[in-house]
Order: sequence, then structure tokens, then C-alpha cells
Amino acid sequence: MSNNDGSMSPHHRTAQARLTTISSHISTGKPAKVVVCRDLGPDVMPILTERKDIEVLFSQPFVTSSLLNIHHGATGVLVMVTDIVNEELLEAAGPSLRVVSTMSVGYDHVDLKVIGKRGLRLGYTPEVLTDAVADISIMLALMAGRNVNETMAITREGRWPQFTWSPFALCGPQFSTTPQFPTRTIGFFGFGRISQATLSRAIAFGVTDCIYYANPDSAPKHERDQEILKEHHPKLKSLRPVDLDTLAKESDVVIVLAPGGEKTRHAINEGFLRKMKKHAVLVNSARGTLVDSNALAKALREEWIWGAGLDVVEGEPNLQADHPLLKEPRCNVLPHIGSATLETRLGMATLAANNLIGGVLGDKMPAELDAASQ
Amino acid sequence: MSNNDGSMSPHHRTAQARLTTISSHISTGKPAKVVVCRDLGPDVMPILTERKDIEVLFSQPFVTSSLLNIHHGATGVLVMVTDIVNEELLEAAGPSLRVVSTMSVGYDHVDLKVIGKRGLRLGYTPEVLTDAVADISIMLALMAGRNVNETMAITREGRWPQFTWSPFALCGPQFSTTPQFPTRTIGFFGFGRISQATLSRAIAFGVTDCIYYANPDSAPKHERDQEILKEHHPKLKSLRPVDLDTLAKESDVVIVLAPGGEKTRHAINEGFLRKMKKHAVLVNSARGTLVDSNALAKALREEWIWGAGLDVVEGEPNLQADHPLLKEPRCNVLPHIGSATLETRLGMATLAANNLIGGVLGDKMPAELDAASQ
Repeated sequence: MSNNDGSMSPHHRTAQARLTTISSHISTGKPAKVVVCRDLGPDVMPILTERKDIEVLFSQPFVTSSLLNIHHGATGVLVMVTDIVNEELLEAAGPSLRVVSTMSVGYDHVDLKVIGKRGLRLGYTPEVLTDAVADISIMLALMAGRNVNETMAITREGRWPQFTWSPFALCGPQFSTTPQFPTRTIGFFGFGRISQATLSRAIAFGVTDCIYYANPDSAPKHERDQEILKEHHPKLKSLRPVDLDTLAKESDVVIVLAPGGEKTRHAINEGFLRKMKKHAVLVNSARGTLVDSNALAKALREEWIWGAGLDVVEGEPNLQADHPLLKEPRCNVLPHIGSATLETRLGMATLAANNLIGGVLGDKMPAELDAASQ
Repeated sequence: MSNNDGSMSPHHRTAQARLTTISSHISTGKPAKVVVCRDLGPDVMPILTERKDIEVLFSQPFVTSSLLNIHHGATGVLVMVTDIVNEELLEAAGPSLRVVSTMSVGYDHVDLKVIGKRGLRLGYTPEVLTDAVADISIMLALMAGRNVNETMAITREGRWPQFTWSPFALCGPQFSTTPQFPTRTIGFFGFGRISQATLSRAIAFGVTDCIYYANPDSAPKHERDQEILKEHHPKLKSLRPVDLDTLAKESDVVIVLAPGGEKTRHAINEGFLRKMKKHAVLVNSARGTLVDSNALAKALREEWIWGAGLDVVEGEPNLQADHPLLKEPRCNVLPHIGSATLETRLGMATLAANNLIGGVLGDKMPAELDAASQ
């Protein structure tokens, strides 16, 4: 069994020092104990269970206390986006722990400082969920414009027979362009892979212009933008980074697709929402913390904007039925299912399993996050 | 005021003979009486009300009996998709009636035989709603795959806090392709303008192959298909007409977009649904009569297919909450809002008003249906 294959990035020296220990441990032939917090299904579990060098323990359904009991002495742990990975948990695992593999692209639930301090490696699952989240971003934009939360209630509650048709009843702003209204601007808060995949889809609906607000710490990406413009010529007329003020004022649809955490907390606040167009819609398919829920509920109630489509809400999943956003008819709220497709979850589970194996064996992990640089 | 401008198509000779009468009537200076069945809003009503040669009467909300009373002696009537235009109604109008203008692309609600027999002209609103209906077709395909009816209920009913996350919970088939699953076939029942606009959008999600079932009475359109393939090269790998059996068996998504009426009634029946893929979804954004509701409810209940997205249902709007399709969690039912966007309804209302004016004055109508050829 090879340990480090030499391809590990230099910023993992601390982790590597410890990996040498674990590698020699593995070379004794005793299988490394790993804890997997959920059944990954018949297509993926054998990747782990059929290995002789790994002993798989389950902790399902995951609760921190049960994991604390089970995973002392574990070399690796595979967690979900709903599991909190904090000092307590990592301390309980003891010094044998080398790797945390999360089956998610986000890592809000993982305390990166503690990961770094303990020299642990962290695996995550970027890219494999790009298409699924881009799909749901477009779906939520369409649903917000078409008032799906309101209109589906008409059929579900048996109110369709009483509904009186009229030319503009149930109408909302159209996502696509029409011959009479030939331009449409989509705005992104964050312009990474998922935003770009969402833009590609939106262009097929006739969206003509794209503006985005990027992380102010990152360098401008003129070349990349020129490539995107070239790829979508002549349909996409313009693509440019803007400040938050312009993003709010010029977008017909604002899609939030950026990491969560303190830096972006409540980036979409009352000030932003007040500047948006009256017929614009807001979509959040990233992390709930990015949007101030009370401000958004007010924006919908007082009709500053047309509607919203949310796959995530701050404080999820602890939303009662009387949550301010759930009371707004123009708010379409889904229970964080952005990556919830059979194809994508299979891809994520496979990647998380391979990250776990790589970390446990001291090999390359297919998708490792540099916790120290975050 | 000009009457016939010479551009009228030859198949309206009967209508034209009568129009000569009405034109001379108009030339006397007496305004022609028209009945408009709904308020078309402040942007469109002035097109009619500000004319000196037309007197506008309302019948709102539309009920046949009130229209029967009001529209005797009318030269034109502007109706909605929810109004039934039959022998009784047309007889009550009397011999002065020249034109029926419906604010819809479909004309199931209009008795074409009676229109033809009476030599009336019929205006409708094709093309202006193409983009809106293509949008909702994609939205319903996404919603069916993402189980929106089920998942939105979780948040709405306050069940999110109790929801236990697991890798494949709430997952459905992905609309878009992924690196692991790089092909996807979309199938259309009917391949007119709206289907083609829907296909354009689907290709941006990675759909690679398209099959369609076309009206067997119409000639094959190889050249058009070659043009579509060329336009979407290299993303779209294949495009071909198929029989119903192949449409059912090979499609990952089946989208029904064809006229209603007897010829297509229950085209999607138990036999068709039984042949579909277990993970396929069915979308109907055309007319309810095309799909056998009982067969579809059975298909969903017994899991022959994954889910459905319906903007139309046979017998609409008279669906009670205990309708077999409304009881199926995997069935997403909207109250016929395919064209319900502010932009599109404005376009439709404008076109319907101009059709009405053209018909009343014996001029060219911007979009006239040849009732005799249907």
C-alpha cells in the first residue's frame, strides 16, 4: 500500500508528518477504523466495505453523542452537510484521527480552525454538484416569477373550480425574453462554477446581459469573462463585474451563489432589497446565512420585489410553519435539495468515499480543501 | 376607413362576401358594436376604446347568459380560453357578427364547424406565447424530477426540523447531464414552435438527444430538423421523428405540446405510460385532453414513472382536491398558467385586440385562423 504519492500540495506538511505515522500503522496490516455517518447506498458502500485495509463503522442516524462514543480511535470520519464538526467531536476522536471527509461542497459545518490546528486533512465534493445546483437555481427563478407557491395551492386545495380567469390573473414577470421585451439582465452574487453553469442555461431562455458581484479579495478575471462572452456570442451581449448597488438596481433576477460564513453573512440585506426592481426575483441556492430572512420577508410583504425562490434559509432546518418567510405567498422555499438528485448524490458519495480512503491511507485525495488558506 | 386591404388569404371568400356588407355599414359612420369579455388592462383597452369606429361593450365576468343578452347585434366578440364559443352563442349574436377573436393560441373552446358554417372569421394569438410556455415546460420538467410538490410541503407544513438528512433522501432524476451520466433524451409529443423553443432551452442543460412524435398527416420536415441540428451543433447529437412506442421507451422526459381535440384525446394512455422509463417524467403544458388522467394517476401510484408536471388537466378547472392526480405526491399541478406572464399576456391582449379590429373593419387580421382547414 503506497502512502503519500508525492502529489500532495505543500501546505499540508503538518498533516503529512502525521500521515507518516498512520502509514506505518497501516503497514502493520491492522485495518484503519473509519466512521461513516450515513449509509451511502449499494453503489458506493462497497468502495469502502470491500477493502481489507479499512474497517467501516456506522453511526446512523448521526447524532453527535453517538458519534463521540463510536469514533474514538477512528482514523477517518465521513460526514454530511448536516453534521457539525467541531472541537468537541474532533477531540473525542483522539489523536488517531487523520481525515474528515464531508459529502458536500460547502463546509460551514466544519470548524476549519480546529481542522488546521490539529493538522487534519479535509475532503469535500466540489464540481460534481455544479449541474444539479445550476438546475435548481433556474427552477427557483422560474418558480418565483410564476408564483408557484400561490398557484399550486389553488389546485391542491381544490380552489381551481372557483377561480375566475382574467387576462392578468396569476401573472408574474417572465424569465425569458419576448419579441416585445427583448432584453433581460441576470445578476449573480458570487460568480464561480455554479453561477457560470446557471448563466449558460439562462442564455438559452434569452437572457441578454449578465452582471455579477465577486469576492473583492480576488483578482478581476477579464480573460475568463471574455471567453464566456465568446462562447455565448451573439446571444450574451454583456458580462461584467459590478458593485452591490448596481447588482441590486439592474438585475431582473438576482441569484445568490457564494460561500456562507461570516464574510458574506446578510450580504443581501434590507438596503440591497430596497434597491431591487419591483418586478425582480431573488434566488438563494447557496447558504441561508447570505440573506437576512426578516428583511426578505419585509421586502415580499411590502412588495419591494416580486418574489423569491429559496433552497436554503438561515437557521435551517429549524423553521416552523410560522416562520416569516413561510408565511409569504410569494416565497418558494425548498428544504435544501440543491444537490438532491440520484446522479449527483451518487457522484458526491463516490467522491467522499474516495477522499476518505485517500486521507486514511495517506494517499492523494481526489478533492482536498486547504483549510489553512480559507 | 379602408375595408379589405387585398391581403386576405383566399380561403376566406365566404367571410369576405359578408365583410363587404359590414364595411359599407361602417362607412355610414355608425360605430360597430364589439363585446370584450374581460378587461384587457390600461395598456391594451385604449387600442379599442379610443377608436371612433368601434363601440366597446363589456361582459365581465363572462357568463354565457350575460353575453347572450349583451351581444345581440355585435359585429365582433373578444373571448378568453375559458369561454365556450358554440352555436347557441353565435346564434344569439345574430347576423351582424363577423369575427370572433380569442386571446389564446388554442381553440378547443371554439366550435370551428359553426365558425365555418356561418362564414365568421377567427382570430387567435399564436407565437406571442411561445417563450412563456417553453419556460413553464422546462420548469415543470425540473419540478417533476425534484419532487417539488412533496418537498415544498415539508417546509410549508413545518416538517423541516424533523427531517433526517440522508444521502439519497428526496432525490429524483436529474434533468441535466453530469460527467458520470453524459447523455439525456428529451421526447416531444408534437414538435411545433413551442416544442422547438423548449428544446433550445433543454440543450443548455446538457440534453444530448431529441426524439419527437409528429402529426402523422403532416409531411416529414427533414430540412427543418437539419437546421436545428446545425444550430445546436455539437451539443445536440441527434434529432429524429419516432413512433409512439419509441417516444415512450427512449425518453427521459416526455413533454406534451400538441393541439387538443378528438384527434389527440388520450394520446398519452396506459399503454404509453407503461412503456416509459421508471425514472422518466411526463410534462403536459398543452391541453388536458391529451393525457388520460386515471392512467397517469395509476402510473404515479404504481411507480411506472417517476413524476409528472401538469399545467393542464382534462376537465379543468373542475378539479376537486380529491382528484386522483391531486392526491399523487409526485404530481405537480398548476392551474393552466402557461402563458400567464405580464409580458406575454400583454402581447396576447394586444394581438387579440388588433385581430378584433381587423375583423370588424374587414381589414387584415394579424393572426387569423383558417377554421375550414382545421
